[in-house]
Amino acid sequence: MDVLVPFDARDPNSRLAPVLTPDERRAFAAEMLADVLAALDATDADATVLSTASVACDASVDVDERPLTEAVNARLVGADGPLAVVMADLALATPAALSRLFGTVGDVVLAPGRGGGTNALVVRHPEFRVDYHGASVRDHRRGAERVGATTAEVDSFRLATDVDEPADLVEVLLHTEGRAARWLHDAGFGLRTGDGRVRATRD
Amino acid sequence: MDVLVPFDARDPNSRLAPVLTPDERRAFAAEMLADVLAALDATDADATVLSTASVACDASVDVDERPLTEAVNARLVGADGPLAVVMADLALATPAALSRLFGTVGDVVLAPGRGGGTNALVVRHPEFRVDYHGASVRDHRRGAERVGATTAEVDSFRLATDVDEPADLVEVLLHTEGRAARWLHDAGFGLRTGDGRVRATRD
Repeated sequence: MDVLVPFDARDPNSRLAPVLTPDERRAFAAEMLADVLAALDATDADATVLSTASVACDASVDVDERPLTEAVNARLVGADGPLAVVMADLALATPAALSRLFGTVGDVVLAPGRGGGTNALVVRHPEFRVDYHGASVRDHRRGAERVGATTAEVDSFRLATDVDEPADLVEVLLHTEGRAARWLHDAGFGLRTGDGRVRATRD
Repeated sequence: MDVLVPFDARDPNSRLAPVLTPDERRAFAAEMLADVLAALDATDADATVLSTASVACDASVDVDERPLTEAVNARLVGADGPLAVVMADLALATPAALSRLFGTVGDVVLAPGRGGGTNALVVRHPEFRVDYHGASVRDHRRGAERVGATTAEVDSFRLATDVDEPADLVEVLLHTEGRAARWLHDAGFGLRTGDGRVRATRD
């Protein structure tokens, strides 16, 4: 399966700004990207990082400065077979969850993200295009219907969890032991319980 | 599979207070409970609602005023076979997701909730006990290890999504067409996109 992994090398995960400096966000984003690429590497995926600028990582990199939707659609136009798109901040992704995505039958297979996003998808229809603005999972369902493509959805907490705000750091600390989790530990983050909610706090 | 569905009939889903009155919260909670029971009814589950007070619903009701952890553990002590616990606010639960939970092999099978909770679990070990305080999914992993029980986890966005704060209403509107979703529509809720985040807003 050919897989695109879009990555913002310039100002990644901007909603983590309340808890991480710009340099820390870039470093943490690179660790999450490495985790996603490692998980993909244990599947049948042939991954290409679609990055807004050059980035050092363990996959081929295709630099495209255009906005996400435009850059992905340019690849869908040229695809001569199935193409998957997997976001770079899915730090909880496992080979099992990704294999379930790639193995689900459908012209368009969606992995919904929390809050209406589309964290990963597989496209097997020549006319389908993405639109990552707004409630994209709803728009992708409609877009698939419009071009006569069958759709399916994969029910995965790991793929639904894009790590883009401070509360999401809890999930990384609880559910992975990958590079992103180690980076958080090294940066002094840990879980705090006690007042009813679980929070990731820093020393 | 014997299944307990804990339900707070007195002050359910208190974190929805910013957007729903107490009466509305009780009504909405009853619709979510009905959705969960309907999903369970399409599996091999034999469901009992474990409620803090009497409640009208389509299952047998076992009233227990004790706190959640204590009430569930009292049933685990007396269980003579596998026992599952499925929270009543899993409005996105489907028969497929629940069957995946029930069919997963392990002495203790956990369905993690967002933020460290345990939204559903199956117990097949006589000594395992629950503790729903704090980061319960972590505590349940440790508790299982302590009594020598094998653990497994089911990776499900639908089971990870307990609907207990305003942002979660987006998930109900996007991912179900059940009674809870209809109740929200009838109460005037709809999706608003446009400023980057998707929100559930009321007319």
